[in-house]
Amino acid sequence: MQQPTRTELAALGEFGLIDRIKQHVKIENKSTVRGIGDDAAVINPDGLQTVISSDLFAEGIHFDLSYTPLKHLGYKAVAANVSDIAAMNATPTQILVNIAVSNRFSVEAIDELYEGIALACENYKVDLVGGDTASSRSGLVISITAVGLAKPEQIVYRNTAKEGEVICVSGDLGAAYMGLQVLAREKQEFTANPEMQPQLSEKDYILRRQLKPEARTDIMYELRELDILPTAMIDVSDGLASEIMHLCKQSGIGALILEDELPIDNLTALTASEFGVLPVTCALNGGEDYELLFTLTQADYEKVRHHPDITAIGITKKAQDGIYLMSKGGNPYPLKAQGWQHFQA
Amino acid sequence: MQQPTRTELAALGEFGLIDRIKQHVKIENKSTVRGIGDDAAVINPDGLQTVISSDLFAEGIHFDLSYTPLKHLGYKAVAANVSDIAAMNATPTQILVNIAVSNRFSVEAIDELYEGIALACENYKVDLVGGDTASSRSGLVISITAVGLAKPEQIVYRNTAKEGEVICVSGDLGAAYMGLQVLAREKQEFTANPEMQPQLSEKDYILRRQLKPEARTDIMYELRELDILPTAMIDVSDGLASEIMHLCKQSGIGALILEDELPIDNLTALTASEFGVLPVTCALNGGEDYELLFTLTQADYEKVRHHPDITAIGITKKAQDGIYLMSKGGNPYPLKAQGWQHFQA
Repeated sequence: MQQPTRTELAALGEFGLIDRIKQHVKIENKSTVRGIGDDAAVINPDGLQTVISSDLFAEGIHFDLSYTPLKHLGYKAVAANVSDIAAMNATPTQILVNIAVSNRFSVEAIDELYEGIALACENYKVDLVGGDTASSRSGLVISITAVGLAKPEQIVYRNTAKEGEVICVSGDLGAAYMGLQVLAREKQEFTANPEMQPQLSEKDYILRRQLKPEARTDIMYELRELDILPTAMIDVSDGLASEIMHLCKQSGIGALILEDELPIDNLTALTASEFGVLPVTCALNGGEDYELLFTLTQADYEKVRHHPDITAIGITKKAQDGIYLMSKGGNPYPLKAQGWQHFQA
Repeated sequence: MQQPTRTELAALGEFGLIDRIKQHVKIENKSTVRGIGDDAAVINPDGLQTVISSDLFAEGIHFDLSYTPLKHLGYKAVAANVSDIAAMNATPTQILVNIAVSNRFSVEAIDELYEGIALACENYKVDLVGGDTASSRSGLVISITAVGLAKPEQIVYRNTAKEGEVICVSGDLGAAYMGLQVLAREKQEFTANPEMQPQLSEKDYILRRQLKPEARTDIMYELRELDILPTAMIDVSDGLASEIMHLCKQSGIGALILEDELPIDNLTALTASEFGVLPVTCALNGGEDYELLFTLTQADYEKVRHHPDITAIGITKKAQDGIYLMSKGGNPYPLKAQGWQHFQA
């Protein structure tokens, strides 16, 4: 077997690495006045408002390179940020990427990472316009800033939902979380018995949801075409429960969510039982779904009632009615936001 | 002596930490439509173009916490990014801050970091509008994105200098580099003999340049008031030589720099000799100066000829004349960009 080429980062240096990264860059948006290569990028909003969001992903916390291909990681990091822009109903247009890498990584590894970043840029039609490359003492850190543009009246905030609206979610929930559980189990089994070949093909869908999630810009563009403006919107990154709490608290309303209506893929439910987890727990607290959670007026809801990829999961209520989940058995439980507890030891 | 309070990050959790960070935030710019608290921040450019830059600082690479107070670190990280915006001649307006911290850090430590960030926001009149807080397996990583606004015709790029213009630099050079050498020496001596009290007061100026540098927005605003638009501009973060090379190569010109004219503070020169380093080497390759390097037409230069904080250091030439440093002895040496070599083992 041929050994893969390994070029040390030191052989390129920082400026060499930047030149190499530039090869992954194609500029597609006319709002991109200047990309990589100056002190800063320049964006022409052309009468629109600028929407901007930034996220950081650290090795060992947000990803485990023993089962995350670098190309997928690059794609996912961009998708996660584009998802935030979509949740504002803004058109994603530019990203800036900062990376810190240790010399454990080769030039080829960084190429792979940027291949994934470039693929995401192509799919979401965003331009890579800047960022920073630095070394780190240990591990890989990626920090991405995404920029979008929107007419002021088009921007959808979290705090503008009202009583008596329909709570909708795109796609299905909990799959990325179960994908992560499967990957963690395979890693453990591989560590115990390196000869074992993993049998992962039947888990394709949930693995893809974990490793290469998509931002739901498609849903955002579809709603626009249907002339639907959600009354409030947020993306589901920390788990549905946590996002419902954010949206309700910031809007000053309550909610009733129906367990029966939560969209959970069969494979997610099946895998959850394998692991002895309730599917509803995955859906509520799993996280990394990158679906859109939004509220619609009754009239707008009628336009998407039969949409295969949008599910009504509940209704907004008065604040004093609280935030409840109606179980399959018909009992209301107060909803709790678990969210990520990164800082727990 | 009273023990300082130590609150574990785990006691607050991510949402608690975000709430605490919000206490450091004051919104001052009317371009800030929405700050922290939604999927993304919203900026109203109001007819101006958006200038955006992002940088990452990793513990052990960009800073050493054994001699960098966290408050200064927060200030410096913002100043370094604002410097990039100033180098585009754009008015800095917003920043987003991503941090990754290990549980080695207490809530009080993060408070200190954000005090420095908040102080810089106040001084440079920028609003903290977003970002991400995450944990890391090891050490502290800070990634900052700075946003500025400018009229399109006001933005100054790197690639627009022409032959026969005056090359100017603000402030003085090499001080931050010598400050770092002094700090590293003190750390070494302290490690060898912990009883020893450091004698650093006489090194005040160069230590300040290293620990709490300023972005030269003051120079940018002054040039505007004098109705001077530099023909090209770049900030000096990787060392003067490297920045001159960038500016010349991107503009397709050559340059002649006069060693005799390089602005070097007496304390920098004195400390350089203490360390057996040539002051000119500090000025050319030191880095972290965060001064502005810019080119002016002869007519514009006349307006700042006697400015105490702007120095003409050379003249732009045809590309085929090359990029040279004229030594004090009158010998021309080809200029070499050393820059940072982070990736060297």
